Amino acid sequence: MAANSVLAGAVQILCVLAWRDGKETNSAMLAKSLNTNPVVVRRTLKALERHGLVKLRPGRHGGVALLRAAADITLEDVYKAVEPGGALFALRERGNPRCPVNVTMNRVLPPLFGAADAAVDQVLRRTKLAALVEKIP
Amino acid sequence: MAANSVLAGAVQILCVLAWRDGKETNSAMLAKSLNTNPVVVRRTLKALERHGLVKLRPGRHGGVALLRAAADITLEDVYKAVEPGGALFALRERGNPRCPVNVTMNRVLPPLFGAADAAVDQVLRRTKLAALVEKIP
Repeated sequence: MAANSVLAGAVQILCVLAWRDGKETNSAMLAKSLNTNPVVVRRTLKALERHGLVKLRPGRHGGVALLRAAADITLEDVYKAVEPGGALFALRERGNPRCPVNVTMNRVLPPLFGAADAAVDQVLRRTKLAALVEKIP
Repeated sequence: MAANSVLAGAVQILCVLAWRDGKETNSAMLAKSLNTNPVVVRRTLKALERHGLVKLRPGRHGGVALLRAAADITLEDVYKAVEPGGALFALRERGNPRCPVNVTMNRVLPPLFGAADAAVDQVLRRTKLAALVEKIP
């Protein structure tokens, strides 16, 4: 699977917001930190808003603000916001329903794949956004 | 990230081989279990061969055989064979080198992402192929 940087982008956006500590921030400013297009930033912001992490104020004087303290946001919260499905591994969509190996795989693999997802969630849950923000000089 | 079924396919291929217990098997037979094209199967077989899990015998009477006992193959071995990069999360490729938040992210995120990878490896390492093959009726 291609490693993906959506989580890194979302974490960076939230860290910029926490670091600016309530000062007016908008998607153009965030896009400068990420060196990307404001449209890309807004897509991530929408996902973060849906999950109650930020508040967006649309319009000319629009902006974005953290809805929770950085000490109350874990990387798992960010991951769940930007990867709502959040499954690392999937069963194959096709397979021979008359092959006993195939039938068995569809039964025995889901708990293993679920355990892998849970292990990642647990690692990400250990780190709070505040711990990252502290490291910003 | 899109959950991906490459691991599931590779595990199934190896389980078919273990289940047939040395009986002649080729990519056409494996493709029947997976209900897919033999070309897809051969691509996975090549990866498994590169990592010493199977031996391929090319040609008209070609076939494929397990190189290690199912009790000596973990799901981590299979994962490493089909996902040699094996990183779940990546840093963003671009970013503003003059933004202290961006610079900090590139320093603090890699160990966290590495811990997530290690957690998945550990979960997959706990399960041996033989434990799955035992469940096949």
